[in-house]
Amino acid sequence: MKKRIPIKKQILSENDKLAQKLQKKFDTSNTIVVNIMASPGAGKTSIIYQLIKQLKTTYSLAVIDGDVVDIDIKKLQSLDIPVALANTGGACHLDAYMIKKSLQSIKLHDIDLLIIENVGNLICPANFKLGSHKNIVIASIPEGSDKPYKYPQMFLGADLVLLNKTDLLSVTDFDMQQFEKGIKRVNNSVSYIPLSAKTGVGISNVVTWLSTLVSKKLS
Amino acid sequence: MKKRIPIKKQILSENDKLAQKLQKKFDTSNTIVVNIMASPGAGKTSIIYQLIKQLKTTYSLAVIDGDVVDIDIKKLQSLDIPVALANTGGACHLDAYMIKKSLQSIKLHDIDLLIIENVGNLICPANFKLGSHKNIVIASIPEGSDKPYKYPQMFLGADLVLLNKTDLLSVTDFDMQQFEKGIKRVNNSVSYIPLSAKTGVGISNVVTWLSTLVSKKLS
Repeated sequence: MKKRIPIKKQILSENDKLAQKLQKKFDTSNTIVVNIMASPGAGKTSIIYQLIKQLKTTYSLAVIDGDVVDIDIKKLQSLDIPVALANTGGACHLDAYMIKKSLQSIKLHDIDLLIIENVGNLICPANFKLGSHKNIVIASIPEGSDKPYKYPQMFLGADLVLLNKTDLLSVTDFDMQQFEKGIKRVNNSVSYIPLSAKTGVGISNVVTWLSTLVSKKLS
Repeated sequence: MKKRIPIKKQILSENDKLAQKLQKKFDTSNTIVVNIMASPGAGKTSIIYQLIKQLKTTYSLAVIDGDVVDIDIKKLQSLDIPVALANTGGACHLDAYMIKKSLQSIKLHDIDLLIIENVGNLICPANFKLGSHKNIVIASIPEGSDKPYKYPQMFLGADLVLLNKTDLLSVTDFDMQQFEKGIKRVNNSVSYIPLSAKTGVGISNVVTWLSTLVSKKLS
């Protein structure tokens, strides 16, 4: 079993090289790419759905969806934008190779913002670069306020942390101070937006964050 | 990248051989072993904590904890039973090799029930056998009722499904019928117990399920 670490390192190094190439491709087509990561059930698809609804009138969007099955993709396709299913082959994360394959069905030059929905997992997706410009991590109130302490690697690589399901704050023992202290301890420069995909509270702040990113790129 | 599948198959096959050996070891020492799997934040540690409190007066227990950090292990150690931290090296699942290493600090012949708390992840833990006699999968209300449809592999391998955080049922749009239909569709023979680790409702049913298992083995 001692061989496992070198194999893992080699896979990661190959992946990172391909991720660099992908980012060059995104830069050439002037496409901003965000990689959205979270636990299963944290609300990735619900948040992406809300964001697309608000952003699609201003920008041209596309989504790569890294789910094991195609339930979420159907919800996103109803928004009438290009949605590609990344074939993960049962893997617990997306890698750069899967993104490269998914891009075959997306005309990048027409896209301002490409949203990648990673596989629901707080560990492995943090290790596989996809060529994205920004990483967004979604946590949610019922998961508990200890998540940044338990999964530091995921929060370390985040540019933006979203805390979803704030509508459940009053009925759980979630400690907001502990959570905020936790993300700042791991990653002092991270942006942070609490929100509820259910009620819509806070979604406009994410729309602004993404719009600023895309506008800068386009200008 | 084409080489990845054979490497994965080889690792799984080596793992399964070791898992078989481990199960023989557990049978020799008359120890029932359960492998508990769930998403991050579904409530694995809280449920295990409640179960141990009720079971430890009747049986001798031990826990192997597969977390990335040692937050949960401290909570479980307060219960005054043997708790071993499985060194996952950042991996997103436990494997049989990690269990073998962890067993070095547990006197199996003294233990009736060994509870393995797997890494928080709904994908990879399903692929790595640990030699356990039964697999328990925990889902939770706020994760949504579509989980058995999205992560079928995990539910397919379960002997018992626990649905935690039923105290949040009235404040979410969780569809109990959809969930129950989902687990039965994937796995018609699975046992199923809804509960709340917070209020304690349903915990006694899991205590009974485990007690029956251990009693059969000891008799």
